[in-house]
Amino acid sequence: MKNRQFDVSDQQTLESILKARRDVRGNRFSDAPVANEDIEKILEAASWAPSVGFSQPWEFVFVRDNKIKQQVIESFEETNQSAKQQFDGEKQAQYAQLKLEGIKEAPVNIAVFYRASKLPVLGQSSMLETGKYSVVCAIQNMWLMARALNIGLGWVSILEPRKMEKILNAPEDAEFIAYLCLGHVKEFLEKPELEKLKWAQRKEIESVTFIDGY
Amino acid sequence: MKNRQFDVSDQQTLESILKARRDVRGNRFSDAPVANEDIEKILEAASWAPSVGFSQPWEFVFVRDNKIKQQVIESFEETNQSAKQQFDGEKQAQYAQLKLEGIKEAPVNIAVFYRASKLPVLGQSSMLETGKYSVVCAIQNMWLMARALNIGLGWVSILEPRKMEKILNAPEDAEFIAYLCLGHVKEFLEKPELEKLKWAQRKEIESVTFIDGY
Repeated sequence: MKNRQFDVSDQQTLESILKARRDVRGNRFSDAPVANEDIEKILEAASWAPSVGFSQPWEFVFVRDNKIKQQVIESFEETNQSAKQQFDGEKQAQYAQLKLEGIKEAPVNIAVFYRASKLPVLGQSSMLETGKYSVVCAIQNMWLMARALNIGLGWVSILEPRKMEKILNAPEDAEFIAYLCLGHVKEFLEKPELEKLKWAQRKEIESVTFIDGY
Repeated sequence: MKNRQFDVSDQQTLESILKARRDVRGNRFSDAPVANEDIEKILEAASWAPSVGFSQPWEFVFVRDNKIKQQVIESFEETNQSAKQQFDGEKQAQYAQLKLEGIKEAPVNIAVFYRASKLPVLGQSSMLETGKYSVVCAIQNMWLMARALNIGLGWVSILEPRKMEKILNAPEDAEFIAYLCLGHVKEFLEKPELEKLKWAQRKEIESVTFIDGY
């Protein structure tokens, strides 16, 4: 792999995968089971993520037991009730129509945790959050590898982290980061659903770049 | 892009890019300038990242002025002095040998910020940190696109976020996430430097996976 030079065709492949990646919810998953070797490829992709001080602070809890899934769903529903209250009028009505998770529909559920190192970590002194950021880089690698395998992934964030830690019996030094739902899909939407629905607009790159300061 | 099916060759290309990506520091950058169109491709890759509620909360400050770079270097050096104290004896001596940033050597410096939305964001209620996680997903997309363009990227985390915000005149609602150094490289190392030096060991995937709880 040393000094491997990528060419235009490789760049275009990456570009296509980045652009075709979607957040997939319960209304898009199919029943088709996910092959173990695909799960392995997705976990391997996570393991190649950058991590502060090579700490690799990611842990993955596969949720298979239906009773546990039911507790996760209940936590989602409870959290979602109050999340909905953030929005008013028409926006709240639109919110209520959206399917925002795929816990039951997705054949594979993975809770992702950050496990702090017991030893000091190079690069993680003035910015402790870089440990969690490493876990997020791993999640993004998983998302892209899943898409390259034509597998959908949805990130459920409408959950109470402390409740998730309790449900999954997490030790004190493990912190809940994300709940991922994976499965084959009936379709990948051409655009993000919230863009299609005009819930929010895509930003122009020029509007988020600055030179030498704000 | 709708329902685009990727094949084994696409998956292998992604796998190669994920595996060949490295954190690049000042001792590996070459002097070759980075083409504007490559910078544009890297920023576009950021813009395709997933973001909570399609909030796209990323902002990029290009640092070009040498006086500002000098302030960043001073902040790094000050922070690194105390970071070094985390380690004892041999480890501290090894730490002191490492080149941990490329602020001066890299032709392109980008400070990345999280800019909180003024409106409520779908999915960002019980886990406020998902806004910052979206920015991290964008950074990982940039890192991969840079690698596909044979451009190195290094993430400098040994900085004081509040000082960085001050140096770059960030508004109150912008939060410093990362400082990225980009440039062409003399070489991409075959393995992460900290792995090669046996600073830390690569974890087995089996050691970080669990089923139905810890």
